Amino acid sequence: MASYGCQLFSVLSRRLCRVRCTAAPSARALRLSAGRLHPAVGQGTDALTGGHGTDALTGRLDRFGGVTVDLAHTGLPPDISEGDFGSLLREGVGRWRAEGRVAVWLRLPISLSRCAAAAATLGFTFHHARADQATLALWLGPGASRLPGYASHQVGVAGAVVDESNGKVLVVQDKNKTLNAWKFPGGLSELGENIGATAVREVQEETGVCSEFLSLLSVRQQHDQPGAFGASDLYLICRLRPLTYSIDFCTEECLRCDWLPLAELARTEETTPITSRVARLLLHGLERGWGAVDLPMETLPAVHSGRFYQLYHRGLPLA
Amino acid sequence: MASYGCQLFSVLSRRLCRVRCTAAPSARALRLSAGRLHPAVGQGTDALTGGHGTDALTGRLDRFGGVTVDLAHTGLPPDISEGDFGSLLREGVGRWRAEGRVAVWLRLPISLSRCAAAAATLGFTFHHARADQATLALWLGPGASRLPGYASHQVGVAGAVVDESNGKVLVVQDKNKTLNAWKFPGGLSELGENIGATAVREVQEETGVCSEFLSLLSVRQQHDQPGAFGASDLYLICRLRPLTYSIDFCTEECLRCDWLPLAELARTEETTPITSRVARLLLHGLERGWGAVDLPMETLPAVHSGRFYQLYHRGLPLA
Repeated sequence: MASYGCQLFSVLSRRLCRVRCTAAPSARALRLSAGRLHPAVGQGTDALTGGHGTDALTGRLDRFGGVTVDLAHTGLPPDISEGDFGSLLREGVGRWRAEGRVAVWLRLPISLSRCAAAAATLGFTFHHARADQATLALWLGPGASRLPGYASHQVGVAGAVVDESNGKVLVVQDKNKTLNAWKFPGGLSELGENIGATAVREVQEETGVCSEFLSLLSVRQQHDQPGAFGASDLYLICRLRPLTYSIDFCTEECLRCDWLPLAELARTEETTPITSRVARLLLHGLERGWGAVDLPMETLPAVHSGRFYQLYHRGLPLA
Repeated sequence: MASYGCQLFSVLSRRLCRVRCTAAPSARALRLSAGRLHPAVGQGTDALTGGHGTDALTGRLDRFGGVTVDLAHTGLPPDISEGDFGSLLREGVGRWRAEGRVAVWLRLPISLSRCAAAAATLGFTFHHARADQATLALWLGPGASRLPGYASHQVGVAGAVVDESNGKVLVVQDKNKTLNAWKFPGGLSELGENIGATAVREVQEETGVCSEFLSLLSVRQQHDQPGAFGASDLYLICRLRPLTYSIDFCTEECLRCDWLPLAELARTEETTPITSRVARLLLHGLERGWGAVDLPMETLPAVHSGRFYQLYHRGLPLA
């Protein structure tokens, strides 16, 4: 699951299951040009072939039967017109369709973004864009597009910093809300930032309090989140241990900031339902032991990639 | 947290904290034109003003001091050249900079994507793009850009379908992996799909088994996920109850599919570390009661929006 390949296979399989896929069986990148397949060689460019009478767009074939054309590496004239690119792309799409390809991915640098308008006339739409590159896609297979989507969620993290010596927790009131309710300091994860790191950073930025990550307490999923540009939102609340206690809160962002008794936060109406719920959870943990409410985190190595991931689940008895 | 406003305030506040923000205090949309601010009126367009000697781009001011220009509603000529748009935008950016605006958001329909190239020459970059629209942004405030990012995570969900009558769990082996390891069926969430719904759908698509959602078991975060177009990945494993037991697995996607004893899955090496871990967790739950491992889900109403969200955390004693 969760990889482009698997996901594409998954979406492909929804209706194609048990119908032989057009994908090549090998995972090797293949080079597709002028209707012929030949193995990719390390040329570094998907050259806009020339000297054959007519130029033709070339792309790389993936093992799922999709073709990727990267305009940063085609040697296209930087001032190519929408009309000229549209003609090139129309020829390419016709060729790939005849070859039974299921999709075309088109990557373009922002300086060639006019090519997106030309692609749109052939049915391409934006898949995603970031910084100085956009990726468009066109589904050629049967039925509706079954291409995998782009990242669908923003991740917000809040930190519940509990002072166990007095049963108090660090809370803020946002400055720019109509309802000034107590809540845990928090904010959006930056790309590549671990959940716990977001919680610690946001707590420090909003309140001046330094802390360390202990566990994950709750997960909330909400769709069509306001301010998320149409994306969904996962909001995670972590339990943190305070390393400093003195409050020096951000007056631009917060109206108030205080250490509030958990029992008070659990019963006050001057809070959000989710904060109230987590306050009860924390009170329960404080009274019965944190093992009752925590999801501890472990960092583990990924099987093949050499990367590491963070895994959260209920504690297990020692094996 | 987690809304554009809060996030922007949060990022703004990182270095601007205690420095008076340029944002207007009111949340009312304001219309910005020709260097003057006047309240937005319901014209439905951010008109490209004419008849004043020179045309000028107009945009809406947000309460954080950013300006949004939506090219779908400016009345721009559909064939406006990159050069002409670049001149218009250069004038606008100069004006907004002089007015102390902190950012410019530029929304453009794919048919006007050539305007992105013109914007890039002024320092704009893609913020995100989807379907037939791209959004670019330019930071005008002090220091590095502090604009909120777009959705950073794809969400993959797997379903552990446990047959409590015999202690077996439903597992598959992916067809297209070098390592054919047993794992739980799963796949990527579609935009707007609840976690539990993804698990149930993917299990049915891959194995033919119908099931219902019971609880969340584990959360894994991994960055720079292969196949995620540079995004991070949250991989959630849910516990499901089988409603049917007969396997009719997708032969395009899966090599094998079986009901395996949990005890066997927990000790075999023919699996992934995370599957093995969750198998032990499930075994523990089967033996000690599911309360030991589950994060139950509740659907709750959001405070203001009329929407609902799903909240997952450890069970609480009845109040």
